[in-house]
This record gives sequence, C-alpha cells and structure tokens, in this order.
Amino acid sequence: MKTTRKIISSIRKWMIKNQIDAFIIPHDDEYLSEYIPIYNERLAWVTNFTGSAGIAIITHNNAYIFIDGRYTVQVKQQVDESLFKIMHLKNNPFIPWIKNNLNNKIIGYDPRLHRIKWLDDIKDLSILRLKEISENPIDILWDKRPKIDLNKVLLLDQRYTGKSSFEKRSIVSQLVKNNNCDAVFITQLDSIAWLLNIRGNDVPCNPVTLCHGILYETGDFDLFIDKKKIPEGFAKHVGKNVVVHATKNILQELKKLKGKTVQIDPNTSNIWSKNLLNDSGCTVKYSDDPCSLEKACKNEVEIKGMKECHKRDAIAVCNFLAWVYKNIELDKLYDEGILADKLDSFREQLNLFKGLSFNTISAAGPNAAMCHYNHKNHQVPGKIKMNSVYLFDSGGQYLDGTTDITRTIAIGEPSQLMIKTFTLVLKGHIALSLAKFPEGIAGQHLDTFARQYLWDCGYDFEHGTGHGVGSYLNVHEGPQSIGKGANNVPLKEGMVLSNEPGYYEENSFGIRCENLIFVKKFNKVNGKNLLGFENLTFVPFDKKLIDVNLLSTKEKKWINEYHIEVLNKIGPLLEFDVQNWLKNATKPIS
Amino acid sequence: MKTTRKIISSIRKWMIKNQIDAFIIPHDDEYLSEYIPIYNERLAWVTNFTGSAGIAIITHNNAYIFIDGRYTVQVKQQVDESLFKIMHLKNNPFIPWIKNNLNNKIIGYDPRLHRIKWLDDIKDLSILRLKEISENPIDILWDKRPKIDLNKVLLLDQRYTGKSSFEKRSIVSQLVKNNNCDAVFITQLDSIAWLLNIRGNDVPCNPVTLCHGILYETGDFDLFIDKKKIPEGFAKHVGKNVVVHATKNILQELKKLKGKTVQIDPNTSNIWSKNLLNDSGCTVKYSDDPCSLEKACKNEVEIKGMKECHKRDAIAVCNFLAWVYKNIELDKLYDEGILADKLDSFREQLNLFKGLSFNTISAAGPNAAMCHYNHKNHQVPGKIKMNSVYLFDSGGQYLDGTTDITRTIAIGEPSQLMIKTFTLVLKGHIALSLAKFPEGIAGQHLDTFARQYLWDCGYDFEHGTGHGVGSYLNVHEGPQSIGKGANNVPLKEGMVLSNEPGYYEENSFGIRCENLIFVKKFNKVNGKNLLGFENLTFVPFDKKLIDVNLLSTKEKKWINEYHIEVLNKIGPLLEFDVQNWLKNATKPIS
Repeated sequence: MKTTRKIISSIRKWMIKNQIDAFIIPHDDEYLSEYIPIYNERLAWVTNFTGSAGIAIITHNNAYIFIDGRYTVQVKQQVDESLFKIMHLKNNPFIPWIKNNLNNKIIGYDPRLHRIKWLDDIKDLSILRLKEISENPIDILWDKRPKIDLNKVLLLDQRYTGKSSFEKRSIVSQLVKNNNCDAVFITQLDSIAWLLNIRGNDVPCNPVTLCHGILYETGDFDLFIDKKKIPEGFAKHVGKNVVVHATKNILQELKKLKGKTVQIDPNTSNIWSKNLLNDSGCTVKYSDDPCSLEKACKNEVEIKGMKECHKRDAIAVCNFLAWVYKNIELDKLYDEGILADKLDSFREQLNLFKGLSFNTISAAGPNAAMCHYNHKNHQVPGKIKMNSVYLFDSGGQYLDGTTDITRTIAIGEPSQLMIKTFTLVLKGHIALSLAKFPEGIAGQHLDTFARQYLWDCGYDFEHGTGHGVGSYLNVHEGPQSIGKGANNVPLKEGMVLSNEPGYYEENSFGIRCENLIFVKKFNKVNGKNLLGFENLTFVPFDKKLIDVNLLSTKEKKWINEYHIEVLNKIGPLLEFDVQNWLKNATKPIS
Repeated sequence: MKTTRKIISSIRKWMIKNQIDAFIIPHDDEYLSEYIPIYNERLAWVTNFTGSAGIAIITHNNAYIFIDGRYTVQVKQQVDESLFKIMHLKNNPFIPWIKNNLNNKIIGYDPRLHRIKWLDDIKDLSILRLKEISENPIDILWDKRPKIDLNKVLLLDQRYTGKSSFEKRSIVSQLVKNNNCDAVFITQLDSIAWLLNIRGNDVPCNPVTLCHGILYETGDFDLFIDKKKIPEGFAKHVGKNVVVHATKNILQELKKLKGKTVQIDPNTSNIWSKNLLNDSGCTVKYSDDPCSLEKACKNEVEIKGMKECHKRDAIAVCNFLAWVYKNIELDKLYDEGILADKLDSFREQLNLFKGLSFNTISAAGPNAAMCHYNHKNHQVPGKIKMNSVYLFDSGGQYLDGTTDITRTIAIGEPSQLMIKTFTLVLKGHIALSLAKFPEGIAGQHLDTFARQYLWDCGYDFEHGTGHGVGSYLNVHEGPQSIGKGANNVPLKEGMVLSNEPGYYEENSFGIRCENLIFVKKFNKVNGKNLLGFENLTFVPFDKKLIDVNLLSTKEKKWINEYHIEVLNKIGPLLEFDVQNWLKNATKPIS
C-alpha cells in the first residue's frame, strides 16, 4: 500500500507541474475494447482495483474511485480506503459528480483513453474546464510495467472467413465512397481483424491484434502495427494494396490526406484519433464504423463454421453437465472455481479451440443473482448446495467461430419459485426463438417476446436479452442487439445474436437460459420474405426446472423437438456414459 | 384556372421584387396543428388542392406540388397540371429534391409556417440558400380570404377537467423552474387549452382556440389572443395571475424577459416564435412542451369522463350498426357518404356532444385498403357491396372526453382471407389489450404484441398501432404512442391510447379493430406495480369475421367477457330493436 501512496504522490507532483487540479484515470485503454491487455491496466496499477470497469480521479487533496454494482465487494478488498474514497456510480454518476464537485477546477484527461463521443457529450457542460494532456503520467511513472507481447498475427484461412480481405475491402471502400469520404480511419480492433482476415491474442478473450488502419475509397489499406508482428505470407494473404507501416507513422500517412474528408466513428474511436485527423488537415466526418454491419452479417461459410463449432462446444458442455450430475450423486459439491476449471478443461480439448470467448461465469446459489458474477473476484468462491440452482455462462473461441451458452441446472430439489421463474424465462426464450418479423424490425422491438411471460407475473430482468456475436471474434459485437434500450438497427440475414432472458432473485438465486441464434429468411405463403431465427446452440435445458403446466402445446413441442435435435446432433459425438446421460436429459416432456 | 395562373404570376412578381428564386408553400399554418382553419388554407388557395398534407414550391419558370400516397387521385382532380408538376413524396422527398434541383437558388420560406426543427435539420445542408420572408405574399394577395371566426372561448368546468388551471400552472411552472428556465413560450394550442381549462372551435375537430402563451416559473401566465374572444367570467375561471394581451403585444411582453432563459419546443413551435425570443434578447432553451406529459396523464375525473362519453358514443355506433344490418337485409346497400352522414347524425344526438373528433372514415371494399381514405376526396363515393367488408373509423368530441373507434364488419359472406386476417388483427388487438409491463416501458416495446400473429403469417400493417388521445381535446396527442418507430416515452398511469392494428390487402379490402384503452396500475402477487390497460370502448366485434379455430382459450374468453361487458354497459342505454341486435351480436363464441 505504501507503493500506492507513492504513486499518488508522484501523480500529484506531475499535476502541479502541469497545472492540473484533477486527473482522470479510466479503466479503458487506447483501443477502447471490452478487454484490455495487462500492460494497459493503468487503473489497476494506480488503485489495485482489477475490475473490468471503473474510473478514478485524483485531486490535490483527495482521490476517488467510481465503481458499479458488480464491484461493491471487490473494491473494498482491493482498494486502500485511506487513500481512495469509494463512490458508487449509481448514486454518484461520474460526470454530474465532477460537475458539482470540481467546478472551476482544471481537469486533465488522456485523449487516448476516452471516446470522441464522451468529450462531445460533456463539452456542452461549459462549466467544466477540461485539459487534454500530451503524455500520461502513469506511462512515465510505471516502472515494472509488463512488457507488450509480440504475438505474431494469425492469418485466418478463407475456408473460415468465406471472403477474401480484398473482397471485403472492395465492399467497405464502396461504403466509404458512398458516404462521400476519401478514407476511413479504423480504430476498432475487431473491424481490422475482420477486414484483413487476421486474428491475434494481444487482448484476453478478444482474438484481435493491436493496430490501426486507414481504408481508402480505392480499397487500398494502410496498416499501422509493430512490424515484428507480421508473419511470413502476410502480403499474399491480405492481397494487393495493403501497406504495413510502423505505428509511429500514422500522422505522416494521414497528412497525405490533407484537404480530404476522412470518416471516423465517434462511438468507438478515441479523442487522440480525431486530433490526429485534425492535425493532418483532414476534414473529419462522424460516421458509424463501416465494417460493423458487414461484419455482423455472417456469410454462408461463417454460418457453417458457427454451426460446426457449436456442435463441438456442446460436447464440452455435455461432458461437464454429466460430470457435475455424477459428482452430485456422489455428494461431491464442488466450489465455483473447480467447476469453472473443469468446464474450461473440457473446452480446451476440442478441435480448433483457441481460447475462452470470455471469463467463465460459474455461480452457485445466491451468487447467480448477480448477473456479472465472477468467482475470481472473491477470495473464497461459493460452493454449490443441495436444493438450489447452479448457473454457468461460458464460451469458446474456435478457428471456425465463437460460442456463448448459459445453462441453469437444479441441484437436488429446486423450490417452487425457482421452477416457476425458470419456466417463465424459458417461455420467453422459446417465444423469441420462434419469432417471425418483417425486414426493418430491430432488436428493441423483439425484446418484448422474451419478457412477456415474466412481465405478466410481475417479474423482469435488468439486462439486455441479446447481443451480437462475432465469428472467431468478439463475443460482444454490434451493431445489433436485443433489449429495452433504443437499438434501432434492423436485424439482417446472417446476424448472430444471443437469446438470454433471465431472472434474478436477490440474495437467493439466479436463472438464465442462453442459446446463440442467427437471423435467416423464412419464405411465407403469401410470397413475402419474413425473418426469423435458427438455433446454433444444442445443449438440453434442465427438465427438473420446467413446470409443464405453465407451457402451451406449442412450447412443449418446441422443447421436445429441440431436445431430439440435441440428441441427434450431439449424441453421436459423445462417449458412452455421457451419451446415456444425454438420452435421459432429452427424453420428451408431456 | 385562370385565377390560379394569375395568383402564380403575382407570386412570381413578388419573388422578383424580393430577390427570391423559389418560394415554399406548405400546408401547415402558423399554429402547426393537424387541422387548420379554412382561412389559413394557403396551399389550397394557390393550388386548389384541399388535401390535409402537401407542399408546393414555385420557381420563376416552374411550379411543383408534392403529395403523399393518400392523394395521388385527388391531386389530379383538383390541381391544374399545366401549371403544377405533381411530385410524389415517396419518390421525391422534398428536401433532397430541392437540394438537387435548387442548388444555389435563393429559397424563400415563411418562418411562421415551419417548425424550428425543420430549419435546424436542413440548416446543416449548407448547400441550401434559405431566406426568411417577413410577409407572406399569399397574405398580401389573397383577396376574398375567409374571415377569422370570432368564437368565444368555452370555459370548461372543473367537473370535466378535474383540476383547476391554477393547480395545473403550479405544476407546470415547477417543471419550468426545474429546467432552469424563467418562462416557457407555449405555442401548442391544445397545451394552452388544457392549461387554462378552455376550449374553442377555431379549428375543425380540434376543440382549441387560436392563441399563444407565456407561462412564468412563478405560475403567472400571459395569454395572447384576440380579446373579443374572451367571455364573461374568464378571469374567475382561470384564477389569479393570468393576464390577457392582444396578440400584437407578444414581442413587447417577451422583451421584459430580456436576459432570462425561455424554453421552447422546437418540434411544435414555428421559427417565428424562436425569432421573437431572439429579438427579445432572451436566451432560448430547447425543451419538450412541459404541458405535454401532464396533459397526457389523465386524472381520475378525466378518466371518469372518458368512460362516460364512451358509453354514450357506443349508443351511436350501435344504433348505426343495427341500422346498417337492417338495411342490408332490405338490400339497401348505401354509399360511403350516406353511411358516414348517418353515423354522424347518431352521434350528434348524444348528450354533451360538441363535434366530430376527426372526419369520419367510411370505406367500402377496396377503398378501406387505403388507411387514410376519405370519401369526400372522391367525386363519387364507393358503395358497400355484398360479400365484402365495410370499415368505419370515427369519433366524437364531448364535454367529458374524446372518442375514436374503428369497426370492420362483414357485408354478406366474407372471404376466407378476410376472416383469417381479421382474426389475426383481433388476436393482436387482444394481446395488446392484455399486455402487462413494468414502469419505464414505451409504446415501441409494446407494438410487437399487436403485430406478432400477423408477422407469423407473413403479414404486417404500415401504420402505428396506437396514438395518444386528449380529454375533450385533440384526438391525436403526444407524447406517447405505440408503433415500430422510436417513441421511447414510457407509458404512465392515466394515458389514453388507441389500440388499432389492421390489415390492408391492396385493391381488395381493409381491416382495422380499434378501441381506446387507458394505462392503469395492476397490483401483482410479488408486490411490484405493473402497468396494463383497461378498455374504454364498448362496441361488439363482428363475430362473422372471427375464425374461432385460430383463437386460444384465453382469446375466446377475452372476446366473450368483452361482449358481456358491452351488453351490460351499453344494452340498457339502447332502444328495444337495437338492444335485440346487441344481444345477438354479443352472444358467446365457442
């Protein structure tokens, strides 16, 4: 803790030297991804807090750390409260707080660590005196900073991507042209990975490589990256007109676009990127990342890959489930950590496995009521208990796709409320899965399908119903999503989404039923094309948690047909014991 | 037609004198209401086109009139095509068209006839050279312009409004204060009518009075109106601190707010209003009309009034239905005009009736496939035919409320498709009617309830599912609505909405089932408050159009219970013959 005190003191000295009254330290790094590499964990280095979201602010006399509901316990375990005042974002939203408490103070921020949108939104609050810093004091002070991994880029074969990089660049550059722009500055790591058919492991769980790119309306591409990361065969793989530059040369290349119009996505790019464009003399145009929608609509090869990797992934989950039930019979009630490790180990044995798509959520009893629970954030992980439910949410990265599945299972005899709410959640899951809708309909319009039965009984859940999923890429990707929020992006053929309604009874239990689904066309009698979903995930739902009296004939039919499909698709891939378990787990309900 | 030629020529002379290359003539008047008084029908005076929406533009050598799909037939009947080129807004949206065709031309517009939002949206198109005019040439040239009616203001008793104007002003002025404003400039006619508990008949169908108002954060109110309209007892009715001014004194009063912050709604106020505020030296703040949400959430007295007027209104509709069926039996198949007049005449006999809430839609056969059909726009109205459906959509204004109902009925033997689609529409109507949802849910999230069964069979309808309805005020009011569009205004207790899914088979038939409903709280077992709806409209649905095989048990129960309620509530109010018809019409289905 002495070190933390010393760090804060050094930052304060730097603040005085730079005439700054308060300094913001966000969790985000310069790539603004959901996951960040360990050597960019600046917030953790200063505060010791290792949560996935949070923001600190240091003033001359005080220091504060703002966290959300997920981290109320963890923050107290990790952060020295004699140094940092802990603030809850729910009670003290960050921006209003600084507006009220740092009125007239000069607030320093690192333009690489904040979105353009963030600054544009708060700029209107003219009351704030924000000051951009040119070098982050943490980067100056951090002595034993972990080294940047120099992982070679992985060249992803067209048998997995379905389209060459050249073809993708032709499509996206046409969008840039149609947008009356000369180029786009791309900062989303998964967009560049998709566009060049490359992957990496510079960031945990997201199989991307740290880099930047400029795509010109001609289809030419400048990649800015540590050249040591470029493997043999790269030029041939990406096709003609891709030039690799050292990262330090971005400004130099951008200056060649002086007077031209360059688009940038203010929601995903940092302020530093916009500054670069301004410094280069380009006209900046705000537009959505042009790769986003193209990337989201999977082609036939990608859908085929998703189907294949989901079959393999189901082997791991079935192996795990059979193992859990066997151990329960033997009275072996393991803790969440052992369970998660076991599940992960089953996945690691699968073909084409490249890593987890996110940190496995393994939550017993009341812990599952926290929908972002992570047993690793607690000194002692929870243990499963008899007569409760156990929830696990996990997924893998494979060369041919990405998976994400949640199952909730009964341990012993579940309560009536557990059975009732599980059934209501499952009914919503089925309704969304069966939904048909015309083109133009967005995820926010479909959300109601998943919630209607819960609502009808006075229940709801406080998270989205579905997120986009990449193809051997980020497990959370846009632009589509299903939820109450105002996501008006129409669903399109080939989009992969999660279908994950839930129910959370505080301090008691949590339920979630999650499959991945993809959007496909259904031909209807009257000739009009309707959209709907097809399931990608094939693992049984726990019948012990289903109250058949709450189900309609249609819903029972769906469950039975789904379970038959699980048995037919996954059964033959399993070992004898597990196969027997699956036969039993997929027996029809009536 | 010679006159039109002369008018255009005079406008062109005025354009030359004022250095304007093109002049915009919208249908909107200075109050930007849905309905406009006849003496503000500027577009009709210039073009002869009497539709409810449209926009003309006159250049030195050409003239154009832009209309939407509703008016393709009517425009050809009314407008001289040797003078005006007819443009369809679907193929030629107005703004992109002027951008492409009037590049670098000086385009004149009357700031009183356009919303602030309209100008703000197109201002970014820096390519346009827009010029505000200080006096509209039409107002100068229009010789035999109809006179402004000097209707006295109606003072609406508190037994209908449930709240005094003083109380309403206290509530709304507090909202203005909370918004850090010193005053609000109110330009929405129904907002002022609601706030002062006054009504008028200056505008067809909307029971409002032409005026403007300033509400101060103190609760004081300045009303700008032709003083001749003020009846005896006005001061006592509205309560203290309401000052009546001549309209010409607006600027003079606004100048007293110099240096203060005044809010205005850019979506409902014209550019002229904003100019006034700027000229007065006020700081302008864009905010939603603060009366809107308060007005939308009806109090207990208003809900009681709505219930009462709906019962009376149902008498007229039942009388009409019984009369239609009797005549069909006698082989008297009347035309749409006679039918509409008959329906209107039944309404006119009702207590507290003050007028129609909109022009009755009376549509036979294929005419009903046009969802905004108006038989008066056609030289020869359609006639009802055997083995078809007839659709009527109508409503009344009453001292105690406003109604809006659509029924679709079988004439003879309807086709299988008519029965199928009617049943799907009714299923959606029932699902929305039965929907339960937590606080925070907006109309766009509920829309899916009404469409799901149509979607499932490949059908849809191209209009909203529900609009807000005023209390003896505009039949279309905000801020809430139910539809695919992005209306994120959460539904609140007391809001009245229409529930009107439909289906339209082009050139063949049209179906719509519309009741008014209001939002109320439902107490649920687990203690949480849920919202849902209660029906206001009580008129039977035509059982001949229902395919019971497509209905769930729950839906059959809903229909039978609804029909029993209709019989119990409305039956006793009807004459013997009509009562007998109703008894038959409400017999249970099985």
